[in-house]
Amino acid sequence: MEYAAVSLQKLIEHFRRMPGVGAKTAQRMALHLLSLPKEEVCDFADSVREAAEKIRRCGVCCNLTDQDICPICASERRSRQTVCVVENVEALMAMENTNEFKGTYHVLHGVISPLDEIGPEDITVKELLDRVRTDDVQEVIMATGSNVEGELTAMYISKLLKPLGVKVTRLAYGLPVGSDLQYADAVTLTRALQGRQIL
Amino acid sequence: MEYAAVSLQKLIEHFRRMPGVGAKTAQRMALHLLSLPKEEVCDFADSVREAAEKIRRCGVCCNLTDQDICPICASERRSRQTVCVVENVEALMAMENTNEFKGTYHVLHGVISPLDEIGPEDITVKELLDRVRTDDVQEVIMATGSNVEGELTAMYISKLLKPLGVKVTRLAYGLPVGSDLQYADAVTLTRALQGRQIL
Repeated sequence: MEYAAVSLQKLIEHFRRMPGVGAKTAQRMALHLLSLPKEEVCDFADSVREAAEKIRRCGVCCNLTDQDICPICASERRSRQTVCVVENVEALMAMENTNEFKGTYHVLHGVISPLDEIGPEDITVKELLDRVRTDDVQEVIMATGSNVEGELTAMYISKLLKPLGVKVTRLAYGLPVGSDLQYADAVTLTRALQGRQIL
Repeated sequence: MEYAAVSLQKLIEHFRRMPGVGAKTAQRMALHLLSLPKEEVCDFADSVREAAEKIRRCGVCCNLTDQDICPICASERRSRQTVCVVENVEALMAMENTNEFKGTYHVLHGVISPLDEIGPEDITVKELLDRVRTDDVQEVIMATGSNVEGELTAMYISKLLKPLGVKVTRLAYGLPVGSDLQYADAVTLTRALQGRQIL
């Protein structure tokens, strides 16, 4: 890449480190950016810097926020008695997009994964326990992923929560809406059968 | 997205404007960035700003560069007598990656496209003509795309160049290397037949 300007090469290199971005995409993104008016590019740079400087974890739920308390925890319309435990901010966003959940969240910022040497002390388990102890939490919904690590994390946390007298629930397993039965895997189908509901 | 911090929303919005980036990818990129050490994020922001401020067009070939003259035009090892005309910097990079071309380039920064109201004056045709007139250019290789706009641009420029007494060539059409004959379209196959070479 000796033919590209040094600052262009650096920019491409930065884009390449993004998740899901290969060499060609990084190149296209960098060149796209340079085709924009200079003010817009500077605005982008400012927005990156601002986010890095301002964004921190919510003092209550560990969601990312630029305030002390995130908008969800600060909202009057959200119940603090129901806490939905999610792995990360993306999961929180997915949940919010349903417009169904009126409680508050707790963001773990990871899952317990012995293979990756991530233990309970590396995620925000302690913050969750403190919150359940001091706040009037009635129900904790474990909404971690349905893979091995997500399951393990849900089991581990529920074991710690139960002695505190709080109701611990888990998201339902079953067929994804709109799916055909013949394409469902055996484990999912078994769970869907076990969790069958009266019509 | 009321649940997300304002600066995070802004960052996601910026990423979303990138080519090929949808809502989910933009979100993932922004959150990935925020998971990095702060110095690295600031470094990214600086690199965007630096690129926007430093990068301009090469005075000879219109390639993007942070110098007055791009490294290719400045190189002693590159022939200024052979000029390869490309649509954009990505095409230049693709050509450079072949390691076959030892001449210099001319970047049009677009193609003539009447439907999009892009005429010859919107791309760097004038700069190319000036260069052929003043520099000792022997051959101009038209390496615009093989679509309608690319063809039109190549034809238009070659008509302007020929009276200047310069040899104008076009990249060969034919089968892509490694392809099967049965999947080639009729036009490509016709061109491959017309351009057949003695073995």
